[in-house]
Amino acid sequence: MIDRLVNAIQRTNNPTVVGLDTRLEYLPPSFIQKFASNQKVDIETACEAIYAYNSALVDALCDLVPCVKVQVAYYEMYGVLGLQAFQKTLAYAKQKGMITIADVKRNDIGATAAAYSSAYLGKTAIMQEEMEAFPSDFATVNPYLGSDGIVPFLQDMQKYDKGIFILVKTSNPSSGEFQDLQMQGRTLYEIVGDYVADWGKPFIGKSGYSDVGAVVGATYPSQGETLRKRLPNTFFLVPGYGAQGATAKDLMACFDENGQGAIVNASRSILCAYKKQDTDDFVLAAKKEALRMRDDINLAIGMGKNIK
Amino acid sequence: MIDRLVNAIQRTNNPTVVGLDTRLEYLPPSFIQKFASNQKVDIETACEAIYAYNSALVDALCDLVPCVKVQVAYYEMYGVLGLQAFQKTLAYAKQKGMITIADVKRNDIGATAAAYSSAYLGKTAIMQEEMEAFPSDFATVNPYLGSDGIVPFLQDMQKYDKGIFILVKTSNPSSGEFQDLQMQGRTLYEIVGDYVADWGKPFIGKSGYSDVGAVVGATYPSQGETLRKRLPNTFFLVPGYGAQGATAKDLMACFDENGQGAIVNASRSILCAYKKQDTDDFVLAAKKEALRMRDDINLAIGMGKNIK
Repeated sequence: MIDRLVNAIQRTNNPTVVGLDTRLEYLPPSFIQKFASNQKVDIETACEAIYAYNSALVDALCDLVPCVKVQVAYYEMYGVLGLQAFQKTLAYAKQKGMITIADVKRNDIGATAAAYSSAYLGKTAIMQEEMEAFPSDFATVNPYLGSDGIVPFLQDMQKYDKGIFILVKTSNPSSGEFQDLQMQGRTLYEIVGDYVADWGKPFIGKSGYSDVGAVVGATYPSQGETLRKRLPNTFFLVPGYGAQGATAKDLMACFDENGQGAIVNASRSILCAYKKQDTDDFVLAAKKEALRMRDDINLAIGMGKNIK
Repeated sequence: MIDRLVNAIQRTNNPTVVGLDTRLEYLPPSFIQKFASNQKVDIETACEAIYAYNSALVDALCDLVPCVKVQVAYYEMYGVLGLQAFQKTLAYAKQKGMITIADVKRNDIGATAAAYSSAYLGKTAIMQEEMEAFPSDFATVNPYLGSDGIVPFLQDMQKYDKGIFILVKTSNPSSGEFQDLQMQGRTLYEIVGDYVADWGKPFIGKSGYSDVGAVVGATYPSQGETLRKRLPNTFFLVPGYGAQGATAKDLMACFDENGQGAIVNASRSILCAYKKQDTDDFVLAAKKEALRMRDDINLAIGMGKNIK
C-alpha cells in the first residue's frame, strides 16, 4: 500500500494530503442553504451539505493532490448521519482515484483492536457473508497500549494490502508532556518510533518504505530530523503545516535526501481557503491554496536536498 | 457525575459494570433468526438483533448492575447501522436508569478533541440549534497527546456534568511496553496517573472522587495498589476481570479502605454466560453471572477492607 502512495505522490509531484475535517461552520452559508428546505437547516441538511462540500473538493483536487485524510471526529459529532457522510466521503475519494486515510487514532487490545481494524482496513463477517464498514487505505492508530493494540491491524494490512500510521510525535503544544520524557537515553517518542520500525519491518515495499508509517508533527523540526535519521524505512504523515503554524522550512527535516518519505497534511487552510481569499468560490480557492502549498513544499524539499 | 456513579454503586451494592461489547457471533443463532426474513441475515438484521440482545440484557440487569459500558469498536465494524445500534443501546440503558460509559478511547488535539467531546459528552451546533450525537455519562480517553487532548473534554464535563476515564495502566499483556517505562523514578503510567489527578482536581465531588477517572487493569494487582495509594481522589474503571484472567482477589487493590473507588468491568463473561451455562436463555444466564460476579467481588472487597 505504501508503494501506491509513493507512486501517487510522484505522479502528481505533490507530497501533500488534504484533510477533510469538514464542519458545518466552515461552509459558506449560501452553499448550505442550497440543501435546506424552507431555509431550515437540520441534521440531514447539514450532513448532506458537508458531503456535497467534500465531494466538490475531491472533484477539484483529485488530479492535483494524491491523498485525502478524513478526520472522523468531525463526523462523529453529527452522529449516525455524520458517519454516513464520513463513509461516503472516503468512498467518493477512492472512486476518484485518491488514496484515503481514515484519521481515527483508534486504540484498543486483542479482539477489540481487531474489531477496529475490521471497521477501517478489513472486513466484518455477517454469518456467511462479509461487509466493509468504512473502507480506507490507511488508518491512524495510537500506540499507548503497546503491541496488543497494533498486531491486529498488521494482520488485516497483510491480508488486504493496507497501511497504518502510528502516532509517534504529535504536532500539538503539549505533545511533549509524555512523548518527550527521557528514559535511559531515549525519549518516549524515540522508543515508540523504534517499535514502529520493528512492527513495520515485514511490510517494507519496493519504495523502501513500510506500510507501517508514523505521525510526526511538522511543528517540531529538530525532533522530526532525529526521527527521519532514526527511522529510514518509515514513511511520515506530517500534520502541523498551515493553520497549526509550521512552515515548509520546518518540515524539510521530515523528508529524506531524495525528497521522499513524507506526506504533509493541511486541512483548514484548504477547506476554508475561500475565507482568506475573500470569495464564495470555495472550490477555486481550495485549488489555488493546494497549488500554493504544493509549490511551497516542493521548493523547501528542493532546498533540503541541496543541504543534505 | 462521579457522585451519581458512586451513589448508584451503593444503591445496588454492586461495584460492577457490564460491558456490551456485543458482536453477532456472541448471539444464539436461534435469537438472530427471529429477526431474519427468509432466514437471510443481512446487516440490517444483524444490527437489529444486536440491539435487541443489548436491550434484553439492559432490562434484565438495570436493577442489579449500576452501569453499562458500550465498546464502540464492536459497532463501528458494522458501519453506520452498527453505530445506530450503539447510539440506541446507550439511550436505552440511560432510559432504564443506568449510568453509561462510551468506551471510545478517543484522542486528538484542540478543535478535533473538542469535536469528539461534542460527540459523546457535549452538544453539536447545527446553525442555531443543538443536537446530541452519542450522549453518554462518561467517555474513555487516551492520554498520549497530553493536555491538549484532555482539556476540551474537561470543558464539556463542567458544562454538562459528565465524566471521563483516562487510560493509565491497561489490562493487556503488552501494556508495559510503554506504560511501565521508568523515567526519573516514576513509570510512565505513574506520570500519566499524576496528570490525571491534576486534571481532576477541580472536579472532585462530595464522594471525594473526581469526575476525571482512570482506567487501571485488574491484571496488574501490584501496580493497581501503587496507583490506588498514589491517586486517592481518582475513581478507577477496572477491566481485566473474567475473560481476561484477573480474579476478584487481583482487583482488591484497586479499592480503597472503605471498599470504594473502583468499578469492575466484565463483558464477554456476561454477554456469553449462556454458552458456559449451556442454555439458550441468555438473559437468565447473564443475570446469574452478574450476581455471581457481584458477590465474588463484594466478598473480595470485604476481605480487602479487613486487610487494609
